[in-house]
Amino acid sequence: MDPSSDYANDPYTWEGLSGWKSYHTLRPFRGMYCDVRRRLPWYWSDIRDGFNYRTLAGTVRIFFVNLLPALAFQLDMTRHTDGYFGINEALFSSALAALVFSTLSCQPLTVVGITGLISLFNYTVFAITEECGIRELYPQFIAWVSIWAAITHWIAAICNWCDYMRYITDFSSNSFGMYVAIIYMVKGFQEVTALYYESNPSAGYLGVVIALCYFFSVVMLETVGSTTFFTPSIRKFIADYAYPIATIWWTGFSHIRGHIRDSGLARIPHTRAFYPTIDRRPWLVDFWTLPVKWVFVALPIGILLTLLFYYDHNVSSLTAQAKQFPLKKPAGFHWDFFLLGCTCFIGGIVGIPLPNGLVPQAPVHTDSLTEYKDTLTKSKEKDIEPEEGDWVHHNRKVVNATLVREQRISHFLMALALVGFMTGPLLDVLHTMPRALFAGVFWAVGFSGLTAMNITQNILYCLTEKRFVDPSDKRTTLKKSRILYYVFWQMLGVSFSLGVSFTRAAIGFPVIIISLIPLRWILLPRLFTEHELLILDAPTADADTVLASMGGRPTLPEVRMMEEKRRQQGGDGEMGEGSGSGSSSENPRGMRSREAFKDEEEKELEGSEGREEARRGIQATLRTGHA
Amino acid sequence: MDPSSDYANDPYTWEGLSGWKSYHTLRPFRGMYCDVRRRLPWYWSDIRDGFNYRTLAGTVRIFFVNLLPALAFQLDMTRHTDGYFGINEALFSSALAALVFSTLSCQPLTVVGITGLISLFNYTVFAITEECGIRELYPQFIAWVSIWAAITHWIAAICNWCDYMRYITDFSSNSFGMYVAIIYMVKGFQEVTALYYESNPSAGYLGVVIALCYFFSVVMLETVGSTTFFTPSIRKFIADYAYPIATIWWTGFSHIRGHIRDSGLARIPHTRAFYPTIDRRPWLVDFWTLPVKWVFVALPIGILLTLLFYYDHNVSSLTAQAKQFPLKKPAGFHWDFFLLGCTCFIGGIVGIPLPNGLVPQAPVHTDSLTEYKDTLTKSKEKDIEPEEGDWVHHNRKVVNATLVREQRISHFLMALALVGFMTGPLLDVLHTMPRALFAGVFWAVGFSGLTAMNITQNILYCLTEKRFVDPSDKRTTLKKSRILYYVFWQMLGVSFSLGVSFTRAAIGFPVIIISLIPLRWILLPRLFTEHELLILDAPTADADTVLASMGGRPTLPEVRMMEEKRRQQGGDGEMGEGSGSGSSSENPRGMRSREAFKDEEEKELEGSEGREEARRGIQATLRTGHA
Repeated sequence: MDPSSDYANDPYTWEGLSGWKSYHTLRPFRGMYCDVRRRLPWYWSDIRDGFNYRTLAGTVRIFFVNLLPALAFQLDMTRHTDGYFGINEALFSSALAALVFSTLSCQPLTVVGITGLISLFNYTVFAITEECGIRELYPQFIAWVSIWAAITHWIAAICNWCDYMRYITDFSSNSFGMYVAIIYMVKGFQEVTALYYESNPSAGYLGVVIALCYFFSVVMLETVGSTTFFTPSIRKFIADYAYPIATIWWTGFSHIRGHIRDSGLARIPHTRAFYPTIDRRPWLVDFWTLPVKWVFVALPIGILLTLLFYYDHNVSSLTAQAKQFPLKKPAGFHWDFFLLGCTCFIGGIVGIPLPNGLVPQAPVHTDSLTEYKDTLTKSKEKDIEPEEGDWVHHNRKVVNATLVREQRISHFLMALALVGFMTGPLLDVLHTMPRALFAGVFWAVGFSGLTAMNITQNILYCLTEKRFVDPSDKRTTLKKSRILYYVFWQMLGVSFSLGVSFTRAAIGFPVIIISLIPLRWILLPRLFTEHELLILDAPTADADTVLASMGGRPTLPEVRMMEEKRRQQGGDGEMGEGSGSGSSSENPRGMRSREAFKDEEEKELEGSEGREEARRGIQATLRTGHA
Repeated sequence: MDPSSDYANDPYTWEGLSGWKSYHTLRPFRGMYCDVRRRLPWYWSDIRDGFNYRTLAGTVRIFFVNLLPALAFQLDMTRHTDGYFGINEALFSSALAALVFSTLSCQPLTVVGITGLISLFNYTVFAITEECGIRELYPQFIAWVSIWAAITHWIAAICNWCDYMRYITDFSSNSFGMYVAIIYMVKGFQEVTALYYESNPSAGYLGVVIALCYFFSVVMLETVGSTTFFTPSIRKFIADYAYPIATIWWTGFSHIRGHIRDSGLARIPHTRAFYPTIDRRPWLVDFWTLPVKWVFVALPIGILLTLLFYYDHNVSSLTAQAKQFPLKKPAGFHWDFFLLGCTCFIGGIVGIPLPNGLVPQAPVHTDSLTEYKDTLTKSKEKDIEPEEGDWVHHNRKVVNATLVREQRISHFLMALALVGFMTGPLLDVLHTMPRALFAGVFWAVGFSGLTAMNITQNILYCLTEKRFVDPSDKRTTLKKSRILYYVFWQMLGVSFSLGVSFTRAAIGFPVIIISLIPLRWILLPRLFTEHELLILDAPTADADTVLASMGGRPTLPEVRMMEEKRRQQGGDGEMGEGSGSGSSSENPRGMRSREAFKDEEEKELEGSEGREEARRGIQATLRTGHA
């Protein structure tokens, strides 16, 4: 069962096919079948590989970065849906998703839960029902939206439409990540403002203090991981448990006897275990009572939801399996999307917010399951003026990812923990948490998202004084204006999405997000040269293990265009042989320059601080002054 | 008038003298005379050299870091002295000191103003007078304390006692700096707590928010200077004006219409321009009405004050002229201490807090007058495992101090600005500042002091994983336990001083601080080897220009001890010639190893980020993960 080399020649491919066989939609279940066949042999190892320390650390870390924002979004939803979605619904939804996806999915690394976008979606629909005067039908209406979404999910999965996700590059995934991170930051501010109005001014300002301190605590603790203090295991421990440490500390702080405790800080509300938040509602929504007219109004909204999840969930799977992680086990996009349809259906008829892939948190799970090794790097340094200066020796730390503990146990344990928190005693524990903390959670999660995006890194690059840029940075071969032009297109997408999010048209924003893919695929190769796109853009996930599930490596349009140009110009001299002669030779050729380029790039990345650079790029830049 | 090489052979020396001539006290006025003779020729250049951009930047920066803490300490003093010392007294004192020292001193770089220690001193004396039942005699009593202090200052200056300051090494000056920085941090917390009780809880928590944000703003803005963003002049500009930018921004924030403005934030009190804070008091204190008994009780307290200023003022002069600054113009400790006696006298009889050298701010002034050059350093790096890895090239920034704009103009302009703020309209401007800002000022000044001290840096060194320490770091030749043992002795001094500061015995703490000098000079050479002390300790100022005013370079006791040992053991082989044969050969020999050592050290410092490393050592360490 040695897999590593197989996935480049996976049987699931569309290359070299013609006629009806080449139409993805005409061969239903093909993707799902291949996904299961590919992943099932790994099931036992997914359990066996879970018995190591990383699993524990990963469980704790992902539990906190899943639960805390979920609770935060739930507070937000409660406020905007007259309390229809409450804490029990949020916990139920998270637990359901975690149970289903940890046991049945092909990609157990992708953590599924409540996102900011579903919260936005749910209360926009609520506002729409209010405007249409069917406020009291909201439960049934949103149930039907979910049912339609479930049906369209299944269709998409069956018809192999997830194949198109292989065209996702950093251009759109990072724009989306930026958008989500900004939403998180804004939510943080909304949360502290709400506290001010919903409790008293004094508790409001104290809340701001707690939120700020929480945010800085998390950032500081996570930064410890990238220093050289203590031993590798201690600093990793501190970074791993940054959220739990900060949460416990500042929750404790909010209970200090005297003025702080008496200030009337708002806390998470008390609820009855296992029951829906709204009294006397059974878990099953009587969706069959919705008038037929409204059932069909729900259809287009359901499709919009599917578009959102199609992008959101699959991008979170892509980032959870992104290029910086040395993964061995195969992906399975079609099967997982089918599963997501099932959770949509269940979630819809019991009236809970629908779970899907968590964008800023998805790579956090994989990251916390990755074994990193801090290695010593020797460096020599000299002043360039006086020219004859001596080399001064330095020791530096470089972090390399050696192995990802790919397993289902951490995801499953997280599910159990979520179920645990649905019981009475642990609900009481949640009640002790001041709501202000969640503003800090939003800022911490949003900030780490913001800094990791290529938009931020390219802007910072352009702000950096050129002579201090590393010679190995490929961007030095581009004009700054071109880089900013590229950033402009990304920011255009982000701005449109943001602009729409704060209006009633919010439920339409998946269309904008999705449209970034064809924009990248059709427009960008005409605006930028192949060289520029090679440097500025890259597929979000480019491991064969991941791409196999989507039909293999795509040929980038700029590469294809350049080749066509060359072929037309230079006759068919060196390129001539085998033009368009099928899959196995088409692919390697299409990706040739990208592949060669990647090797160099990796070397460079390693040299300049490895994954830390990738993950916390700007933070490091801001602090060390090296771009 | 080319000076640079002269000061090593300055006529003001005590080496090679014998009989009564070698007694410092028996040759009154010698130091003061030499100080003036050495510095007077530079007077015209002190003015001429002031016409450049650095002077402006330095003026603004030092104005803010002088004024803001002075106001903050004044708030503290007002609270603890029943309002005797108010804002007008604080401004008068700062302006007086700045006018006198900018025009008449030998060391115009040393900024003189109101420190935390004089505030502590003043209100401890107030508490004592209250306990003795002479509360209403406080103005006269403190006036007499000041008069006695003035007299003992003059005696010390005339008798050349400032010579002993040449024995100050980082051991005691950094312990003192640490003590002062901790006092600042504590004051910040006291200030926000006081706000909470003196206004309302809501304004109190809002105050904490402003203080925290102010603190982080200053730290962030100052950090920009050590990045590679923008151009050197822009990033220097941002770092230079960190305090003004943050002060204006957060003062403006506190005036945002609505809840923030209405929350009742405490602001600096309104006072009548040019008059003492207490109504119907003339500026001249009727000190002649104090009963003779109390006049003599004031004497020992005056002597304690002199001890405090002797250490505090001279150490601030030393740090303003410390080894990292490439200074050209000569120092003058005796003359300046005489001048300080004069301001003590004037300050005493008009009833204002006595000004003296500002310890954490003193190097800030010189630093902001220093022209730094960001130079490019090429470095090559490779992973040590795989052994045959290629060298990866990097560009890094190294900062070198090229020149200090030594002049009187910035100090004088600051004096004028302070006088301006004593007028009605500008007092109104001060009134707009929320008091909470000052907690932020305390934290910002204290934090930058904390991180710069060798205590902090040694502790961080011991926490660092050894393999990532630069091979050029001399501390690698020592055991960590020895370094911690050295830190222990410093912390012992700091803890004693702190312990005493929070009791009635606070006025006695100068004795503890001063006792660190003989401790270093007598005890430490017996506890540590010459090698250890060479690495862990160094004279605070070691330029000949500075040392000339104190009788030249001292021979370090550990060097003398080692030499005596060698002489006893190895006969007088290579060391024999000219043992004890007078000043010019004695000195170079005594300092030989230190000098050789210094050269290497400097090279190393340059390599590892130059002055930034020196000034913001830990900050950088915390962020980059390189020790």
